[in-house]
Amino acid sequence: MTKGLKQKIIEQVASDLEKVEIALEQNLNPNLKLVKQIASHLLFSGGKRLRPLLMIHSARLCNYYNGFEIEFSVLFEYLHAATLLHDDVVDEADIRRGKKTAHTKWSAPKVVLTGDFLLAAALEIAAKTREPDIISVVAKITRDMSQGEIAQLDKKGKLDLCEKEYLEIIKRKTAVLIQGACKSGAILAKADKEKENALDQYGFHLGMAFQMADDLLDFTASAKELGKNPGADIREGKLTLPLIHSLANASSKDKEKMENTITSTRFSSNQFEQLKEKLYAYKGIEYTEQKARDHVKKAKSYLKIFPDCQSKELLCQIADYSIERKV
Amino acid sequence: MTKGLKQKIIEQVASDLEKVEIALEQNLNPNLKLVKQIASHLLFSGGKRLRPLLMIHSARLCNYYNGFEIEFSVLFEYLHAATLLHDDVVDEADIRRGKKTAHTKWSAPKVVLTGDFLLAAALEIAAKTREPDIISVVAKITRDMSQGEIAQLDKKGKLDLCEKEYLEIIKRKTAVLIQGACKSGAILAKADKEKENALDQYGFHLGMAFQMADDLLDFTASAKELGKNPGADIREGKLTLPLIHSLANASSKDKEKMENTITSTRFSSNQFEQLKEKLYAYKGIEYTEQKARDHVKKAKSYLKIFPDCQSKELLCQIADYSIERKV
Repeated sequence: MTKGLKQKIIEQVASDLEKVEIALEQNLNPNLKLVKQIASHLLFSGGKRLRPLLMIHSARLCNYYNGFEIEFSVLFEYLHAATLLHDDVVDEADIRRGKKTAHTKWSAPKVVLTGDFLLAAALEIAAKTREPDIISVVAKITRDMSQGEIAQLDKKGKLDLCEKEYLEIIKRKTAVLIQGACKSGAILAKADKEKENALDQYGFHLGMAFQMADDLLDFTASAKELGKNPGADIREGKLTLPLIHSLANASSKDKEKMENTITSTRFSSNQFEQLKEKLYAYKGIEYTEQKARDHVKKAKSYLKIFPDCQSKELLCQIADYSIERKV
Repeated sequence: MTKGLKQKIIEQVASDLEKVEIALEQNLNPNLKLVKQIASHLLFSGGKRLRPLLMIHSARLCNYYNGFEIEFSVLFEYLHAATLLHDDVVDEADIRRGKKTAHTKWSAPKVVLTGDFLLAAALEIAAKTREPDIISVVAKITRDMSQGEIAQLDKKGKLDLCEKEYLEIIKRKTAVLIQGACKSGAILAKADKEKENALDQYGFHLGMAFQMADDLLDFTASAKELGKNPGADIREGKLTLPLIHSLANASSKDKEKMENTITSTRFSSNQFEQLKEKLYAYKGIEYTEQKARDHVKKAKSYLKIFPDCQSKELLCQIADYSIERKV
């Protein structure tokens, strides 16, 4: 079933994706070869291009067909890549998408500055839209994301992170960007406020579901599926919802045992498997899956005001796929 | 004489400066206390607010008096502070303006992310101007600056940096921001293209002169005047024009001696004094001073098309002061 949905989505966006890849390549023109190398290392490492596709189809859902939606949409992939570069440096992550991270190949400062360059490239495209509201959206995304990362960094290794704090962090680090891509599509199409708000809310709920699914996969997927070892979040000191919910419901004995695993700098795969058992036993996995499903449902409900069309169907499918995916 | 000029400038801008300080404070509203602390550490450490003042008076020179020039101008101070935060992390600098740098007090990742936050704050103000051309200017500045820093980093410790490469680096790392502040003032005032271009060129030449003066001060000023030890550039592996010019003209024996001092990780103050002597003997100091004076002259020549007024006089004085200053 999941494979079928993935295949369906890919077939519908194949022609857009081809154009997105070309635009990503053409708009990346640093005067330094080194910057192009570092930026390309991440940019062309098999990203799903979810954010550009969301902007493109949000615009088309609002009857925008002027042809600029492809070029403008890549700004959200640049912005995404910029934050990934900074985040990988911040988190000292070694592997992403099955590849060594940029800062393990080049120095951290060069990677930080390449992130700045990509952020600037995103801005330049935002300026080209000549829509001050899109620029405000991009600025707000950047502000929220930097604060989300700092908050996460500040909470690193803390075992008392509560669900509310977790929701605030994933909102800033993931949902605002996906939300902004959808909203910008509506702004580009000069849609009315009702439609703009509907796409904004669709994007927010999709983003929340997407991050929850990501956080689940870090426990439930295999290393091969993930392109990195599972349990990376705990190793980086990040508590996510499956764990937060389970800790809150665990017996004091189990809680202590789980906390020992989380705080030990290197836990064995056996310890990790035992921890996973507890996440199932205390329903942290189930609870997170339910929350993610609720967000998908809400996301899709915001699309109801739009007439049926191919973009609407696609956005619904993407919402479903966000929690069904295995990678 | 210099003190007189400084005093004159300060008296003319005192009332603007007060408003700039308030706007800097009011527009900085992160939802995290930690971000405010890190950002304030640098932002309120005695900067000259040169870039906001240049935007304000460029706008007024083009007859803009709508009152928004103060609020908008702080975007250039945020942008400046963002790049300083990233640069200090990149250069591993310990001291700036007589104070410990942010990343010696907080972790480098937190400082990088606070830099991102300030960049976002600059963008949000740029978006508020509702002038896509100002946003393009800000995006181009960010792109140029990140590339300038990477180029400098890539050339670090290389003894064969030539004058042309040096000029390209200081253009990107300093001149484009000052140039952008002046140009944005003209755009805000909806000045015609001739005036916009004149202020753009004034800003470029002022920026070049300003950075050359900075590079001279690293050799000629005292630790007390600088707020950090002189010779910091060489210690960071950065070759500047006084040195580049002197190396190109030195006897092979002197060249070798100078290069030994530059490449030794820790040189004595005696060695530094001997190096300085060579910079005077081979006219590296004199040559750089002359180049800086040429840029000041060019900068002022671009103001000729404007009718005499207080802002014009001030911009002329700032140009003169850029190379006469001791700090």
